Amino acid sequence: MRKALAIDIGGTKIYNTIVNENGEITGEIEKRPTPKTFEKIREAFKSIISKYENDVDIIAISTCGAVNNSNDKILGSTGNIAKGYPDMDFKSLSKKKVFVENDANAAAWAEHILGASKGMADSIMITLGTGVGGGIIINNKLFKGKNGAAGEMHFKMRTDKHRKCTCGSWDCFEAYASGSGLKHTAEELSKNPDITTYDVIDGWKNSDKLMTEIFNKWQNDILDGLIGLSNLFDPDVIVLSGSMGEFVDTEYLTEEVNKAIITTPTRVVKAQTGNYSGMIGAALLAFGEGCNG
Amino acid sequence: MRKALAIDIGGTKIYNTIVNENGEITGEIEKRPTPKTFEKIREAFKSIISKYENDVDIIAISTCGAVNNSNDKILGSTGNIAKGYPDMDFKSLSKKKVFVENDANAAAWAEHILGASKGMADSIMITLGTGVGGGIIINNKLFKGKNGAAGEMHFKMRTDKHRKCTCGSWDCFEAYASGSGLKHTAEELSKNPDITTYDVIDGWKNSDKLMTEIFNKWQNDILDGLIGLSNLFDPDVIVLSGSMGEFVDTEYLTEEVNKAIITTPTRVVKAQTGNYSGMIGAALLAFGEGCNG
Repeated sequence: MRKALAIDIGGTKIYNTIVNENGEITGEIEKRPTPKTFEKIREAFKSIISKYENDVDIIAISTCGAVNNSNDKILGSTGNIAKGYPDMDFKSLSKKKVFVENDANAAAWAEHILGASKGMADSIMITLGTGVGGGIIINNKLFKGKNGAAGEMHFKMRTDKHRKCTCGSWDCFEAYASGSGLKHTAEELSKNPDITTYDVIDGWKNSDKLMTEIFNKWQNDILDGLIGLSNLFDPDVIVLSGSMGEFVDTEYLTEEVNKAIITTPTRVVKAQTGNYSGMIGAALLAFGEGCNG
Repeated sequence: MRKALAIDIGGTKIYNTIVNENGEITGEIEKRPTPKTFEKIREAFKSIISKYENDVDIIAISTCGAVNNSNDKILGSTGNIAKGYPDMDFKSLSKKKVFVENDANAAAWAEHILGASKGMADSIMITLGTGVGGGIIINNKLFKGKNGAAGEMHFKMRTDKHRKCTCGSWDCFEAYASGSGLKHTAEELSKNPDITTYDVIDGWKNSDKLMTEIFNKWQNDILDGLIGLSNLFDPDVIVLSGSMGEFVDTEYLTEEVNKAIITTPTRVVKAQTGNYSGMIGAALLAFGEGCNG
């Protein structure tokens, strides 16, 4: 059975392991901090790859940032990673084929093949972490758009330039639905600039009135985003993942989305493929040569 | 060359004509008011069809309301048309094949084959009229979603339940970007409940300060919607059509969208296939047996 060296690179950590054609993790999970410069990130890649490339068939990289349709180059903005990273020449990193995909797209593919959206032709996956990632499956294919950048969850929640988004624009879904968004909402409702996401989650778990109000505002902002996505995409299912995804009430969201939409009923569910879904999905995509729509 | 009897049914008018395989209108344009009851709508269809069915190869209907993936049934809500209309059994209307598609989807297809999005794989068409219609082309196919209802331009512009939408929910793009949306925005900014869309357009053309402010607010709400759609779909082009579409400044919108998005540059342009694009697109789709993604 073919094997991939799978690497996941985000703003803070690089993970790597071995994933087989069934999407099973067959190696150790290795982890290191993401270096702060382009050169050191390249060295880290080279070091991981030289250690494993003789034992695998392909290198599959799950990365922050949008990836082009030939799966070998980053397109534009990549958030809080070293400047110059988008210029990385992935092909030059190994004598084996190097396949690159956006981390949220890769995770959406893992869910589509093995997880919560398995067997369904049309699904949307949203990763709720410090930021928000999105991956969209249309007609059993990963939806990439004209150049590969589709699925960015940056649509506006208001039009009065209230809250700046990390993307440079204002009031995107990411700026409200993310963990950082929850902190901003908490600051606004509590008038306490030092309040943390942890404070809110902890207070909400203990039925604190203000913390519950903040949590509900955050969750209802997510709900409003999901209503729009459902009307645009008429998906079978919307899958929520990520560190913040574990707190949302998917039964409530499913009920409220279906009350509001004019498309056909959908479901909001939690992801099933775990913390390493980006590496699993990138490997599965690499074996299937992209499966892009 | 094959010919279709093309029919377009909206809340106020029914049009019909003959469209050939090249998308050329080869018949007279006939027009009648949309009857107020299901039975009378059915009679109108029967009357048009019996007059022409022997001379054509297929019946192509462009309709308000979402249409299922087998293009023979309306799904759910259809706005201001007779109750019961979604139960129409289109197949029973003719001995020839009857093909049905949503009017905005049909118009998007006409633009894709013959108009402003010709030769481009990924496009979004938005019809700005009394309401807002949407049709999305992905990878050269009409995007329908799991059941056929995709492309509804009902994503939220704010989350504080400010303006009711015709869909029953609150603050959808349609409620701001449509002609009715412009009237509501005008009422809010002028404090005059009797102000009309015509007053705004007329004042804006004559550089009236308040009317220009109202017009710009309306156009910037459209802009904010297009930014979200561009980040979600990474389209080659966004095509604007409809009676209100003629007033927007597509150069301004293109420039501002491209400043704000994190996907790759796109263009906002005006539609080219004219007032009967729904009938043209429905006929072209019918000849191609749907071309659904």
